[in-house]
Formats: sequence, C-alpha cells, structure tokens
Amino acid sequence: MINTEVNLRVLGQQAKSAATALARTSTAQKNAALLAMADALEANRAHILTENALDLADGQANGLTDALLDRLNLQKRLDAIIADVRSVATLPDPVGEVIDQRVLENGLKISRRRTPIGVFGVIYEARPNVTVDVAALTVKSGNAAILRGGKETLRTNIVLVNVMRQAIVSVGLPEHSLQYIESTDRRYVTELLRLHDYVDIIIPRGGNELHKLCRENATIPVITGGIGVCHLYVDEYADFDKSLPIIHNAKTSRPSVCNSLDNVLVHQSVAAEFLPRVVEYLAKDGVTFRADARAYEYVKDYDAVQPAGEQDFDTEWMTLICGLKVVNALDEAINHIQAHSLGHSDGILTENAERAVQFLNEVDSAAVFWNASTRFNDGGQFGLGAELAVSTQKLHARGPIALEGMTTYKWVVEGDGQIRT
Amino acid sequence: MINTEVNLRVLGQQAKSAATALARTSTAQKNAALLAMADALEANRAHILTENALDLADGQANGLTDALLDRLNLQKRLDAIIADVRSVATLPDPVGEVIDQRVLENGLKISRRRTPIGVFGVIYEARPNVTVDVAALTVKSGNAAILRGGKETLRTNIVLVNVMRQAIVSVGLPEHSLQYIESTDRRYVTELLRLHDYVDIIIPRGGNELHKLCRENATIPVITGGIGVCHLYVDEYADFDKSLPIIHNAKTSRPSVCNSLDNVLVHQSVAAEFLPRVVEYLAKDGVTFRADARAYEYVKDYDAVQPAGEQDFDTEWMTLICGLKVVNALDEAINHIQAHSLGHSDGILTENAERAVQFLNEVDSAAVFWNASTRFNDGGQFGLGAELAVSTQKLHARGPIALEGMTTYKWVVEGDGQIRT
Repeated sequence: MINTEVNLRVLGQQAKSAATALARTSTAQKNAALLAMADALEANRAHILTENALDLADGQANGLTDALLDRLNLQKRLDAIIADVRSVATLPDPVGEVIDQRVLENGLKISRRRTPIGVFGVIYEARPNVTVDVAALTVKSGNAAILRGGKETLRTNIVLVNVMRQAIVSVGLPEHSLQYIESTDRRYVTELLRLHDYVDIIIPRGGNELHKLCRENATIPVITGGIGVCHLYVDEYADFDKSLPIIHNAKTSRPSVCNSLDNVLVHQSVAAEFLPRVVEYLAKDGVTFRADARAYEYVKDYDAVQPAGEQDFDTEWMTLICGLKVVNALDEAINHIQAHSLGHSDGILTENAERAVQFLNEVDSAAVFWNASTRFNDGGQFGLGAELAVSTQKLHARGPIALEGMTTYKWVVEGDGQIRT
Repeated sequence: MINTEVNLRVLGQQAKSAATALARTSTAQKNAALLAMADALEANRAHILTENALDLADGQANGLTDALLDRLNLQKRLDAIIADVRSVATLPDPVGEVIDQRVLENGLKISRRRTPIGVFGVIYEARPNVTVDVAALTVKSGNAAILRGGKETLRTNIVLVNVMRQAIVSVGLPEHSLQYIESTDRRYVTELLRLHDYVDIIIPRGGNELHKLCRENATIPVITGGIGVCHLYVDEYADFDKSLPIIHNAKTSRPSVCNSLDNVLVHQSVAAEFLPRVVEYLAKDGVTFRADARAYEYVKDYDAVQPAGEQDFDTEWMTLICGLKVVNALDEAINHIQAHSLGHSDGILTENAERAVQFLNEVDSAAVFWNASTRFNDGGQFGLGAELAVSTQKLHARGPIALEGMTTYKWVVEGDGQIRT
C-alpha cells in the first residue's frame, strides 16, 4: 500500500482556491478539459491497467470476493468510462442558467442564477469508475473535488487522478480542481467530514454503514442515498400480462443495485390468481421468495417459496430474493411502503388511473412509478445524461443527482440607486 | 418556569404522522387553517398579552437588556403578526407544482413535482413572532414543525402554540402539525438535532453560537445563515450622489440585522474624494468608522473615525459602526470580499456595466447587488411574500427561504409497461 501522510487542511485550501477559479471558467474551457481528460486516459491506458492489475492481484491475495474483484477490474470497462467523459462534454452547462427573474415595483431587477457549489468531498468504495465519473461531473459543473476511494483500489485511483490532473492542467485549469486522499487511513475520512471551512458538500457512495458514518460525523451537508427497499404494488386492476415483465425486470435485471425490486405487494382480490403466476414467471430465472402468512397460503407448494421472517420486509435484498405480501387495499399498500421503504423507488401496477394517482401522490419516495420498472430510477435513464449519486434525502436534490444538482444559485439584484424604505 | 419532561421521540413520531396527513391536504384546507389561526390569535389576544407580560416581568427581573425586552414584547407587534398569517394564506401553494416534465423515447412520462419536506425542527431565540411565522409557513407548505424557542419567552410561545393548534384542529388538520418543546432544558436541543428518524430539516435562527452548535451536533441537514459581514464596493466609476444614500440606507436603516452593511471598500482613485463625503454623510446619523491604514490617511481628522483593529474586517457590527478600506482595483475588492464576507449580501456601486458584471459573477454570496442597498436581501423585499430564514449555505436554498424553499420534489414516472433494457 502506498500510504502517504496527508494534510487535509492544505488539500482543502487548495481545492477551495481552485473552485474559485473553476467557477469563472467558460463552458468551452471546461469541455476542453473533459476532452483532454478522455484523451489522456486513452493515452495512458497501459499504465492504468498495469496499476489496476496490481490492485487486482492484491485483492485476490487478500481473498476479495469475485463480485468485488469484478467491480475493481477496469480491463473491460475503461472504454466505456472514457466514452462517458466525452459524453459529459456534450451535456448542457448548468452554470449561469437563469432560474427565474422578476422586476419589482421599485424597479429592482432580481434573478436567480445557477453557480457551482464549490468543493465536493466524495467518499466511495471499491469502484474506480466513480473516480472518473466524479472528476468529469465536477469539472463540468465548475466544482472542485476531493476524492477518497476504497483501499482495494488505491493504485488505480491514484493513476487515474494523476492522468486526469495533467490533462486538466494542460488546458489551463487549476491543478487542484481534482484531489485524491492518497492514504487508506480511515482517520482521513473523519477529518474530511469535518472540513467545513473548505468543503461544501459530502457525497458518500457506498453501503448503509458509510452513510451512517457520514451522517453521524459530518459538520458539512451530506447527501445520503443509494439504498432502497423498493416495492411494486399489484393493484386489483393490474393488467397481469403487463405487470409480470415489469416485476421480472425490476427484480432480475440487476439485483445488486439500489433501484432493484425487493418486495411485491398484492391486492387480496387478485392474490389467488396473481401470486402463483409471479412465482412461476420469476422462479425460472432463479428468484426465490419470502411470503408473508397470507401470501404463503397461495404459493406454499412452490419450492422457491418460503415463509418470510420478521426482518424480511425491511431488507434490501441485493440478490435474487423477493418478498411477497397480501394487502387488503391500496391504503394498506401505501402505509406499508411508508413504513418499510427507504424512500428510493416504489411503484403501482394498475389500469385504474384514480388508484395510480392516489399512489403517486401519497407515496413519499424519491421516484414513484406507474406501470414501469423501478430500475428506471437513474440519471441516465431519466434523460439527465449522467449521475453523481441517487439521493433519498429530501434537501437540495432528490433522486438522481446530475449536473443541475451539483449547482446552487445566487440572487443577483440590479438597481439604479434603490434603497429600502 | 413551566418546565415539563418532554419525550422527543414521541413528539417526533407524532409530527411525522401529522406530516403525512398534511402532505395530502388541499390548498383550500391549509388556507382555512391559516385564517382560523389568525382568528384564534385575535380572539385570544388578552390571554396572549397576559402571558407575554409575565415573560416580560421575568425578563426585567432577570436584567435583560432593553433591546432583548423589546424583541420579546408582543404588545405593539401582535396585529402585524396576525396580518402576516392572513397574508401567507394569500400566497400561492408550492405543493404539487410541476417543476419540469419530459417524455422519453420509450414513452415514459417523467415529471418532477413539488412535495412538502416533512418535519421541520426550528430552534430560535427570544422572538415570539418566529413562533407564529414558522407555524404559518409550515402549515402552508404542508410541513409539520417542532419548535424550540428561547427560555425568555416560554410562556408566550406556549400560549401562541396552543391557540394555533386549537385552530388547526378546528378545521380538521392534525393536532400534531405544530408542536412545541415545553422545556428550557438545553439537552432537548441536542436531542432534537439527532432525531433524524423523524425530523427532516433543522432551521436555526439565532447567533453564530447556535449555528455552530447545530452544525457540530446535528445528524439532520441544517440550513445555516442569518449572519453576514456585508460589503459595498465603491468603484472608480461610482456615481457618488447615487452611492451615498445606498450606503446610508444599508448601514443605518436597521443596523442590528444580518443584511445591514459592515464594510465599505473604496477604489484608490476615488478614495480621496469619496471617503470624506461618506464619513460626513453617515456621521451625522451617529455612524462611527474603523479605517484601514490607507483609508485613515484621508479621514483621520474626523472625530467619528478611528484606525481599524486586526479583527475589524471580520466583524459583523450589528450596530452603527462601519469599516472603511481602500483597494487598488476591482479584483482586490472581490478577493477581500471572498476572504472576509460570510456570503450573505455584497454589492458594487458603479456606473460601469462591465465592472458590475464581473463583480456580480465573481462574488460568491447568497445575494449580490449593483447600485442597490444590501438591506433588500429579504424574502418580503424580493417578492417572495414571506421568509422562514436567510440561508448562507449553498445546499437546497440560498438567500431568503420562503415557501418554495420549504418543499422538496419527487420524480413521478408514468408508463405503460416499460422495462429497462
């Protein structure tokens, strides 16, 4: 491990100073930086993959799981990562956008204009692609970033950051726009969380423990998210042929991510018919089920089904397990979701518009769905072109955070001598 | 003192449950609640003023300053407070507003719709008017509130909250929409700051110490603000006759508030002419000055002027004191403001549009002004109809927070069987 002593306050000062310069940088310059970053990543491909191979070898020696090793591995992923950087260059620049404006009776012209936030502190786990994603999105939105990635991918992250920094400098942007904490010592995470003199926002990308650590220790605003117990409610007016592929997609297309389905709630009047169908439809692709007492009665003869335990309806499965529960009515479905969802992605399957509207209005999650897969809760899928994180808290940005969510605004007041009476 | 044991977790659960109901309440019902609150405050005027008189008597006995006693005193203020509640009823309801919408290529209809945030925790000092303001704004925006006011005004706050709660219940809204921590024990502040299971946002309204306490201890997002070291920069192209009344207004119209002027920066080329004029213009109304070494040379003969001390340019004066400093150029003015302002309200006085645009773009404060008084940084003055607080942090809401800033949004996705490929 290449652990270095890090003076975080110096990193913070440098980042803040870079952020001031970045905020004054034109869209053309920022896009030039992004293209230079992409070119540099391409030109340094061999070096990057060599360092990545060293991280992978260490990971294997340390007994990391195949899933984790796969996340670390850039071999097959680097092209797509570089393409994403070029794609961010084509997105509209949110900075400078006029959100609204008005002229007051006294003649004052008041507008709200988007500006960068300043310095992002991003804490993440073993996904080196996040290093590049965050660098691209912060440069484009005119923000500086201090990154702290997982220890399993330190070499890869350091080379990625060094390559991108050289590119940033080559087009005249400040070197300290992008910084990396080159140490795996956990005390730097805690220090970063309290660096409120220099850091404006903390984005944790990882599991529940990381989010809790940030919430408990940060003196800087934290955007938590990326964790969901997601539901689909099959209403008595659901179209089964439409609903089954949605449930299948939401559960099986990528079970390890936060917008994948965890629990299916079924209206009692259709439970007898629908539950066996959903079990048959999904079990053939390896899904197993945890059924509450009422649901279990309808599907207990299937090998894939077992009775649900006490904690099952509060579990983010992250794998091919699906909860099944019978509810008496829409209200019970909504109340169950309010109590057990973590406010990420929840949907209703129904042909009855009135039921759908009630559900969409009353379920208080970042994204609510009607006859569509929860897997769509994603910046790319929502047409935002990119995604920094998915927020499940309610301040600033909720759901997918893209470039707009990486800005704040200022009030600009233009007068001609007005005073307050 | 009427100190009671408070079970904050119960208050939190009740508030969260009330918030769910409030989020589903129509604009008409919320407005009816506001009018009922105003009527009830009017009907209970005698009782309210009696309790307020008891708080005042205690305050006098405890040696509170006249300024603080004046803040506590509702005698002359109650009519205006009640009128403000009625005025909030006339404002547009932000809840349900569609922020944006799009139809994706796959036919999914995606919109962002404003929703209430949930439960507000508001911690404030000895201003009973805040109790009523916050109650009115949270009801209108469909949020529940848990209030914790200053100990000097406990009796007044309790009667205000009880009266408003009865009115809220009388129109069928949940009793626990509005709650008050009926204890002056400081441990409840700390507990409230960590009640993240139930409280979505903390709004401190008070001095620097309160904001620091919240930032250091909260596990809930905090909106800090309400503190400013505000600047006006007199450019070499300033129109003096226009500038002097602006400076006078910004400094003297209400020196104890956060948007009042603290320091005047003057371009070196106009310092010799302008500095004596500004001293003469303001000194006659009691303003005294703290001049940096260069400025002092031009105005040392005035009794009202003394040399500035080391900390003076980082001081929020809150009184009729004004800093004076000579700068070489616009860039120096901007850099000084970036280093010493707290990002509240800063302005430029100039007839040169290019200079103004540079200042407005580069000064990173919540509100930036061109030829206008900093005193305009206020929700009412900006045409927002009301104000919960003025934020100087960059997440969620910056500058005056009114009804829109008291909402979040959800993504609503309407499909017809779409799955993610």
